[in-house]
Amino acid sequence: MTIKLYCFGESGNAYKAALALELSGLAWEPVYVDFFNGEARSEAYLNTVNEMGEVPVMVDGDLKLTQSGVIQQYVADKSGKFGGRNDQERYEILRWVLWDNHKLSSQNGITRFLLNFIPEDKRPTEAIAFLQGRLQAAYKVLEGHLEGRDWIVGDAITNADISCCGYLFYPEPYGFDRKAWPNIDRWLANIEATPGWKHPYDLMPGHPSDRGL
Amino acid sequence: MTIKLYCFGESGNAYKAALALELSGLAWEPVYVDFFNGEARSEAYLNTVNEMGEVPVMVDGDLKLTQSGVIQQYVADKSGKFGGRNDQERYEILRWVLWDNHKLSSQNGITRFLLNFIPEDKRPTEAIAFLQGRLQAAYKVLEGHLEGRDWIVGDAITNADISCCGYLFYPEPYGFDRKAWPNIDRWLANIEATPGWKHPYDLMPGHPSDRGL
Repeated sequence: MTIKLYCFGESGNAYKAALALELSGLAWEPVYVDFFNGEARSEAYLNTVNEMGEVPVMVDGDLKLTQSGVIQQYVADKSGKFGGRNDQERYEILRWVLWDNHKLSSQNGITRFLLNFIPEDKRPTEAIAFLQGRLQAAYKVLEGHLEGRDWIVGDAITNADISCCGYLFYPEPYGFDRKAWPNIDRWLANIEATPGWKHPYDLMPGHPSDRGL
Repeated sequence: MTIKLYCFGESGNAYKAALALELSGLAWEPVYVDFFNGEARSEAYLNTVNEMGEVPVMVDGDLKLTQSGVIQQYVADKSGKFGGRNDQERYEILRWVLWDNHKLSSQNGITRFLLNFIPEDKRPTEAIAFLQGRLQAAYKVLEGHLEGRDWIVGDAITNADISCCGYLFYPEPYGFDRKAWPNIDRWLANIEATPGWKHPYDLMPGHPSDRGL
């Protein structure tokens, strides 16, 4: 049975799930969600796919899971990859997945959206500046942690890396300058060099150019 | 060995860890962090307690864990409580813990902070309004999920409830009106009625009145 993943290319949260599936070697296929025309907020989607109105959603036979971190955990449980080798690593991976959801991807996602995917005259400039300030603090934490480390936890790629990199490969400008953070830049290159790695726009259907952007 | 929890009363994220510890029956004691005088951002704290500059931090013998959701998971693993009865419940609990960290507590925490704990003339009013708009969408998701349910997952209190309620008992105004959301109100009353439940200001040291607020 091929795993299905509801997703779209612009979503870094969906990318975390798609990248975990792809790198694990599990058989999966994308189901495109037309987010920018409101599909994820439609009554049909809310009632039958995800009450949270979000991607990603994974369906494996009778099992449906939502939230990128949950799908990543399922991939680890099913494939034996990316989940850590012992309890200490498992807690440490969960720590960085939660931190990412709380402090990094959550604010990267909305900031990139506001700066690139809504009309310029509707951008809440003060809110964007506020979010960018919070993000600088988050990048600083990640940069410090990666000093002397190739990976966030242990000595190989785990779900901690796959979570934290969710929005960091996208080309749209939103205030993240990879070259300004040498440890983050080196760590992202390690992820890019992982066999089977793909850029979000090569891994999932949907691209800003579809909407003339 | 008594578990130590670095925390302070105003932190809803610390409350999630403290409440899980308290309701589990594990022996624990708080270690007060003087957040409002910068302790969590001090070099000493960053270097020896938590590089993320945050509470809560839990120490149990040689083991140190940070992030409320990780500590909650540890309490579940150690006590056998709040972690779900099977894989399906475990994934569903993690789903709501992640959603809470991404969409609910993260934005409740910063919004309450900006509206109550910094000088009125320094408040970023547009950013606050933006965050409050996002929070209304989050309350709506939770309100809908709790329709016909006493608890977020299954038929008893779990870490999903203990996570999502993190900021919802605080008295400081920040745009959450409990009575406007009848299902959330009923669910919070279920939590309050749980044997051993305590309000955050009764469970952890530190209160706004310490700072003359």
